[in-house]
Amino acid sequence: MTTDSANQEDSRDGGGEAAADDFEDYADLGATTENAMDIAETSMDRVRELVPDETLADRIRQKSVHATGDPEFQHLVRFTGVDDDEPVRAGARAVLDTAPVVTDITMVKAGITGRGHDCPVRKAIGNGADLAAETGMTRTAASVLELDREGVYDGSIAVVGNAPTAALALADCIEDGTRPAVVVATPVGFVKAAESRKRLREVAADHGVPAITNVGRRGGSGLAAGLTNELIHVASDAREGAVDL
Amino acid sequence: MTTDSANQEDSRDGGGEAAADDFEDYADLGATTENAMDIAETSMDRVRELVPDETLADRIRQKSVHATGDPEFQHLVRFTGVDDDEPVRAGARAVLDTAPVVTDITMVKAGITGRGHDCPVRKAIGNGADLAAETGMTRTAASVLELDREGVYDGSIAVVGNAPTAALALADCIEDGTRPAVVVATPVGFVKAAESRKRLREVAADHGVPAITNVGRRGGSGLAAGLTNELIHVASDAREGAVDL
Repeated sequence: MTTDSANQEDSRDGGGEAAADDFEDYADLGATTENAMDIAETSMDRVRELVPDETLADRIRQKSVHATGDPEFQHLVRFTGVDDDEPVRAGARAVLDTAPVVTDITMVKAGITGRGHDCPVRKAIGNGADLAAETGMTRTAASVLELDREGVYDGSIAVVGNAPTAALALADCIEDGTRPAVVVATPVGFVKAAESRKRLREVAADHGVPAITNVGRRGGSGLAAGLTNELIHVASDAREGAVDL
Repeated sequence: MTTDSANQEDSRDGGGEAAADDFEDYADLGATTENAMDIAETSMDRVRELVPDETLADRIRQKSVHATGDPEFQHLVRFTGVDDDEPVRAGARAVLDTAPVVTDITMVKAGITGRGHDCPVRKAIGNGADLAAETGMTRTAASVLELDREGVYDGSIAVVGNAPTAALALADCIEDGTRPAVVVATPVGFVKAAESRKRLREVAADHGVPAITNVGRRGGSGLAAGLTNELIHVASDAREGAVDL
């Protein structure tokens, strides 16, 4: 998945002393690789030829296409809220409020851009190990329940990219009174992935929690990170007065 | 993407003192979340109904379907070698030889399972910052060239999940004499992603480097991590005598 994960890399570690002269053999590489920003821009330009560019929700649809490399994915994204733009507005506002971003697994956390926001980013996995051992539930589900017990999910940007059981646990938390600022959930796979997103949509709608999800078996960590990064981009644009929330 | 990233999580950090009794409200969760291993098994069982299960290459095809949630993805995977199984054999042997796994970005590294192997896992990004600044090439391309200069890619399991320019740089390195044990490359997107994989296939074929790639615009970090994890699983099966390499 294309995300902005590269942007968050600390280019200061490593580095070395390589002089450009050492790489005359790769003189052609400048032409073949271009600047990453140029590639990203060109890529989004192509996406905008394939996806409408009118609403805030369209930006999420565009990002879904960018992240999956599939123009058809725009039709698989679902928005839970008073209108399709609401979860995007809610997500961008949460970014402006420096709400915590809470991901299910490390891979999603690694894909969240480090630029354009001051939100703390944390992962659920690694918490709730005792609960998982005691109950036999999955470690990802237990990790969500444990963080929820600590109040972490209230007001958060809650992101599930990998684990259907994390999405199901998050739905239970919402049903029990937890109110994330926004939910982004795109777990992938053949067992419970689509069902877990459907349940999240139903619970989110019942309790007024804005949510961005997708239908079908596809999805994944890269998509979840990409959509969350787009909420950050919308927030950046709002900060600069380029969009109204 | 479904990977085994959850497996590598250190369940010892966090954890807390949660007692099962505190979660009587979630008594139904055991039924709805099951055990993660059960879900993974059931998921792969469903995949095996959709993808042939005869060759080592079929295991990679299966994993591509598992990782993308899309049965059609099996037809998009390409194997470069004397036969389709060669890159899988080469990758599994490299795992048994504890060859380093070198990923392009952090997100792919985060998706590589911590179980079933003793391979060091490192990322390229973060290296070659000076080279990028001096030449204007992308940081991911510069990071690959810098690590290659240090001899890191020879004999490695070279994985590119995100950046087309990293794949193009890796192709240049191979053309210049570098010999990874195997290449896994699935960068995603609308600009240079498919082209970069095509060039890698051509260079790999010319120089006898086994490679696993895909055609089309789709792909991504989760897929690359998933396919690499399958090489690790094949190696585990070989270690136990369940498959011959």
